[in-house]
Amino acid sequence: MNSSACSGDKGPGEATEERCFLSISEAAALERELLDEYRFGRQQLVELCGYGSAVAVAKAFPLPSLSRKQRTVLVVCGPEQNGAVGLACARHLRVFDYQPSIFCPARSADALHCDLTTQCEKMDIPFLSFLPAEVRLIDDAYGLVVDAVLGPGVRPAEAGGPCARALVTLKRLSIPLVSLDVPSGWDTEAGGDAKDEVQPDVLVSFAAPKSCASRFSGRHHFVVGRFVPDDVRRKFGLLLPKYTGTDCVAAL
Amino acid sequence: MNSSACSGDKGPGEATEERCFLSISEAAALERELLDEYRFGRQQLVELCGYGSAVAVAKAFPLPSLSRKQRTVLVVCGPEQNGAVGLACARHLRVFDYQPSIFCPARSADALHCDLTTQCEKMDIPFLSFLPAEVRLIDDAYGLVVDAVLGPGVRPAEAGGPCARALVTLKRLSIPLVSLDVPSGWDTEAGGDAKDEVQPDVLVSFAAPKSCASRFSGRHHFVVGRFVPDDVRRKFGLLLPKYTGTDCVAAL
Repeated sequence: MNSSACSGDKGPGEATEERCFLSISEAAALERELLDEYRFGRQQLVELCGYGSAVAVAKAFPLPSLSRKQRTVLVVCGPEQNGAVGLACARHLRVFDYQPSIFCPARSADALHCDLTTQCEKMDIPFLSFLPAEVRLIDDAYGLVVDAVLGPGVRPAEAGGPCARALVTLKRLSIPLVSLDVPSGWDTEAGGDAKDEVQPDVLVSFAAPKSCASRFSGRHHFVVGRFVPDDVRRKFGLLLPKYTGTDCVAAL
Repeated sequence: MNSSACSGDKGPGEATEERCFLSISEAAALERELLDEYRFGRQQLVELCGYGSAVAVAKAFPLPSLSRKQRTVLVVCGPEQNGAVGLACARHLRVFDYQPSIFCPARSADALHCDLTTQCEKMDIPFLSFLPAEVRLIDDAYGLVVDAVLGPGVRPAEAGGPCARALVTLKRLSIPLVSLDVPSGWDTEAGGDAKDEVQPDVLVSFAAPKSCASRFSGRHHFVVGRFVPDDVRRKFGLLLPKYTGTDCVAAL
């Protein structure tokens, strides 16, 4: 990962300086600003992030470079917003000719989640009824896994048994892992124990990288955040990457 | 316009043959299918079409090829869904570094319309309070105009005075005109009188071209419809263009 765009970073405590990372509370405040002040809809933001995530996967793993087996993608979607983005990402991956399958460790009653699930089901994207505990079965069956289990600041212990169990499996994968927004379960402020965490090869940050992304050491770090208005960027003192042309994704 | 992708078209009457055009009632049925069966949200579809429209504008008028003045885009947005897509398009054009301004001939009470308007206002996109009747003023002030006034099947007479008056002005422009989904006011089935209609240089069809697009003789015809699932495409016997890579827009 080339972190030169962040070389001027002075840490999240210094709001007057430009910086690359958002704390959990700042990320939540930025989202509230978009939803309440700018009147963005959740559906709208989830769709933009889901599309951008699929584009990021296609940049990191270009379809023409993949064998038939490598095009199979297991998208693991939690019950909250991170999982909703995972569902939108899976649909766009299908449209881009990848072969996604979906596993939802826990049912969600959220209406947007249900609608995005229906879209995937009607597009014949397979839903797994369980995640094999034998990690080799996943390594053999898929080319890569998308981790859309937990959003920023959600600890596995809080997320409940099924999500925590899914993360135990994701930690042991040999195939590449792509984490959406944050690596699920990472403590977004403090450093964690690398052995006890998922270790994504690719991280796709939404809006702007969260603090824990400074510890990310995988191959590719993308940001999907071109929808963040300039005034909001300035208000949060964010140093965002340059997007080129009509790209909705920037590589750091 | 290269219409070779449509050379096998046998007209909208023959549902068993593959064809490129949708009648008004078929377009409405396709949208109902997406909303009711696939549970797409209006916000979601408007965002996808708005983003795709801005990408199409950028393909037809690439930013690096334009002078500072040519980057100014007047987006004329009607009060219905076509206008909502225009508002989303204007926002994405702003993000792509074009200089959009917006004119809404008629106020809309629709909540999505209001939210998309707030997003544009908060991003400092200027809203014109009136459209100069002197067409030379528009030709001089802007590089191009986006026509998001009326959707398929809406006659200017039904649309009310302010929209009909705006179309009278758009008909007389010398600068390029980009029409979203259909050229506003075109009779979507029968042929119209070219002298009495807007004549876009660029047409951006949503989902699939409508019947009237067969009469389009401008320079570029794009389709933003990669979100149409394969089963829906087959159900409507549509011959859709090939999209490449992660593009959300295809040129015909």
